Amino acid sequence: MAKQQTDIVYDFDGCIADCIECHRVCLETMEYCFRMGRRDHAAPAHIRLLADCAQICQTNADFMMRGSEFQEVCAACAEVCSRCGNDCASVAPDDAQLQECAEACLRCAATCGEIAGE
Amino acid sequence: MAKQQTDIVYDFDGCIADCIECHRVCLETMEYCFRMGRRDHAAPAHIRLLADCAQICQTNADFMMRGSEFQEVCAACAEVCSRCGNDCASVAPDDAQLQECAEACLRCAATCGEIAGE
Amino acid sequence: MAKQQTDIVYDFDGCIADCIECHRVCLETMEYCFRMGRRDHAAPAHIRLLADCAQICQTNADFMMRGSEFQEVCAACAEVCSRCGNDCASVAPDDAQLQECAEACLRCAATCGEIAGE
Amino acid sequence: MAKQQTDIVYDFDGCIADCIECHRVCLETMEYCFRMGRRDHAAPAHIRLLADCAQICQTNADFMMRGSEFQEVCAACAEVCSRCGNDCASVAPDDAQLQECAEACLRCAATCGEIAGE
Repeated sequence: MAKQQTDIVYDFDGCIADCIECHRVCLETMEYCFRMGRRDHAAPAHIRLLADCAQICQTNADFMMRGSEFQEVCAACAEVCSRCGNDCASVAPDDAQLQECAEACLRCAATCGEIAGE
Repeated sequence: MAKQQTDIVYDFDGCIADCIECHRVCLETMEYCFRMGRRDHAAPAHIRLLADCAQICQTNADFMMRGSEFQEVCAACAEVCSRCGNDCASVAPDDAQLQECAEACLRCAATCGEIAGE
Repeated sequence: MAKQQTDIVYDFDGCIADCIECHRVCLETMEYCFRMGRRDHAAPAHIRLLADCAQICQTNADFMMRGSEFQEVCAACAEVCSRCGNDCASVAPDDAQLQECAEACLRCAATCGEIAGE
Repeated sequence: MAKQQTDIVYDFDGCIADCIECHRVCLETMEYCFRMGRRDHAAPAHIRLLADCAQICQTNADFMMRGSEFQEVCAACAEVCSRCGNDCASVAPDDAQLQECAEACLRCAATCGEIAGE
């Protein structure tokens, strides 16, 4: 899927895979957070962030599957993933589910950021 | 938007409007539930149901906007809306946000049920 | 992810994977169909069906990722996938993209149908 | 829904309404374009743009309904709406459906652009 006219070859398929994985882990982590209940006062904003991240990742994946190139959408996805990943990493550093989510979000933030040219 | 070959005229535009409204109220009620915290042990399943209901309503609205006719999708939407509306009505009968959500869900369940031929 | 109280073990993870793959192939096939242009008079309905199938598959995958169990949603997904797969198979039997799409749709229809208890 | 710390009052409800309307018109216009068939060689890219615009508008509306504030998502929505609106306006200046779509897209681009601080 070579879609750029430049010498740089972007890994769209890799970015699609990272977005799909991040979407999945965020949905599962939302469910996990519901079951665990409030951990601290930051929780409501954290759950909302997981919902945001799941949705923008799917939207961004769909754009790339359709072959659309909007750096702005990739940039927005990178920003939401970065915020969500950092939140997951800090809310409960010893929680395996949240750490898995943090890793998926930060990996996705990095690959989306590359395509967005950041 | 007369899409049926029968004598019955279905109100697709009305059903689309009910689905869009139900989607909106469910998303707002999810956010409200996060902020309020757990009320009782049913809460995690309730929040998940709000997420389910918001999504199937949007999907069903999109099908009808595209002019697609799948009674199965309308039937699935009616079922999820009915479950979500009944849950909202019973979790906190004196909570205005949840009662608004219950009304939107049950109205949507009724109009989707009509189109699904139930 | 054992979510059923019966002796039957449903493969939810397998069904999620089939839905995600079907969603992806349908989006790519829509784009392919745009580029190829109209093949026959059935084309507009066919493209709409691809959009429908992509969306209900993602919705159904998201329900299962959240751990929700709605047989009605799986049943609706099975019906749309079946219609889309049969259309893809008949529109252009010698077209590799459409045949790949037909296979993904019919595989997804089968696994969703199992979970829906059909 | 006062969500900004500044003196400027943003009309989030108005922006949500514009996004929902733009989503609806784009889906209907996609269907219309399928039925009309290719008008010119730009058509495949145009239909893809309608799909993109419908999706980012819904995503952006959902973010705001949840009470999330991501200027990056509003900015991405503004960019896609702007591209789609300009395309609709130029593809067929005498086509009522496309002109209605162009107006909805450009109105949404303007309100999203305001919230994005552009």
